[in-house]
Amino acid sequence: MTDGGPTSGLWITLEGGDGSGKSTQAALLEEWLAGRGLSVLRTREPGGSDVGVAIREIVLHHRGDIDPRAEALLYAADRAHHVATVVRPALARGEVVVQDRYLDSSVAYQGAGRVLDAAEVRSLSLWATRDALPDLTILLDLDETAARGRLDRSRTRYDRLEAEKSDFHARVRAAFLDLARAEPERFLVVDATSSVDEIASAIRDRVTAALER
Amino acid sequence: MTDGGPTSGLWITLEGGDGSGKSTQAALLEEWLAGRGLSVLRTREPGGSDVGVAIREIVLHHRGDIDPRAEALLYAADRAHHVATVVRPALARGEVVVQDRYLDSSVAYQGAGRVLDAAEVRSLSLWATRDALPDLTILLDLDETAARGRLDRSRTRYDRLEAEKSDFHARVRAAFLDLARAEPERFLVVDATSSVDEIASAIRDRVTAALER
Repeated sequence: MTDGGPTSGLWITLEGGDGSGKSTQAALLEEWLAGRGLSVLRTREPGGSDVGVAIREIVLHHRGDIDPRAEALLYAADRAHHVATVVRPALARGEVVVQDRYLDSSVAYQGAGRVLDAAEVRSLSLWATRDALPDLTILLDLDETAARGRLDRSRTRYDRLEAEKSDFHARVRAAFLDLARAEPERFLVVDATSSVDEIASAIRDRVTAALER
Repeated sequence: MTDGGPTSGLWITLEGGDGSGKSTQAALLEEWLAGRGLSVLRTREPGGSDVGVAIREIVLHHRGDIDPRAEALLYAADRAHHVATVVRPALARGEVVVQDRYLDSSVAYQGAGRVLDAAEVRSLSLWATRDALPDLTILLDLDETAARGRLDRSRTRYDRLEAEKSDFHARVRAAFLDLARAEPERFLVVDATSSVDEIASAIRDRVTAALER
């Protein structure tokens, strides 16, 4: 990670919309890293720690609305505990951490929701984790048409709600791409419409370079 | 509350260490206000909303340590949802909100724990609530000797752990008094060793003045 202090491990996060193939690629990456004899920790946010499981339950399964700032603070609390008790110890042991979603998801989704300011959401996450940023973030970029096709192949109606959802996902995608452009050294952007093997290969190339550094 | 916008109600918070008599005084105040024909909402933090009950369960009953920043973020999440969904609506209806603990407790306790910066904890709470501050905060101030006497009358041993606890409570008390000194118009400081009736009378005088404004 990038906030200094001796950490011998490597921290990789995967980002992108639902249906972009993060889980598939995380599993392939874990298998490949393990095959090279490395210790791998697969984890995720929210819900990657004991406290986080309880927080995830509130965030994802609460009946009724949660105040937007309360929701952002819950994600940040999950993140604080996860980084302090799971990610940092694993990196200190020299492991490779492969993580599904991190602060870029909070910034992209909550910013795209247009209720909270993206810069504030980012600051909150960085305060939560004492400025912990991954060594490498893989963005699985999926354009709107492809995303809709994957998630919703069987439907033909395209109503107002669908249009709103589509607009939201377009904003999330644009926010992810902005984040990647702002930190090209941290991000690898992959076209998620490529084949599983092509994507896995692009990821392995970049991870190999990161491991050699 | 002080962040502008038309609110016809009155928001009163009670602060102080455990054993300082907050619950007793909140009950007496509620009874007195109701007797004057006012609508009163008794509430508390953490745990004053539906989401807050789940958060309180994590904060107070999780087995094992919670990362200090995660804990501060959980309290802030509870506060954000409570103010947005319980306190603000009650004030908008013209009610008197009588609340056990608010941001001064977070600042005093978390600052006194010496892990987090008090100013950061305060900023976090103010971000959570969009700068909501009570109209009146009653600090029930109890000196160390009296506090120990109340909570622990039957014990005679005074070991290292007790000394540490005593030192912690002295820091919390000093932090509360500093907060009251910094905002004399918001705070009423009452000597919690006075009789229940004397304290209730002092509180009623100040609340009467606030209601007349």
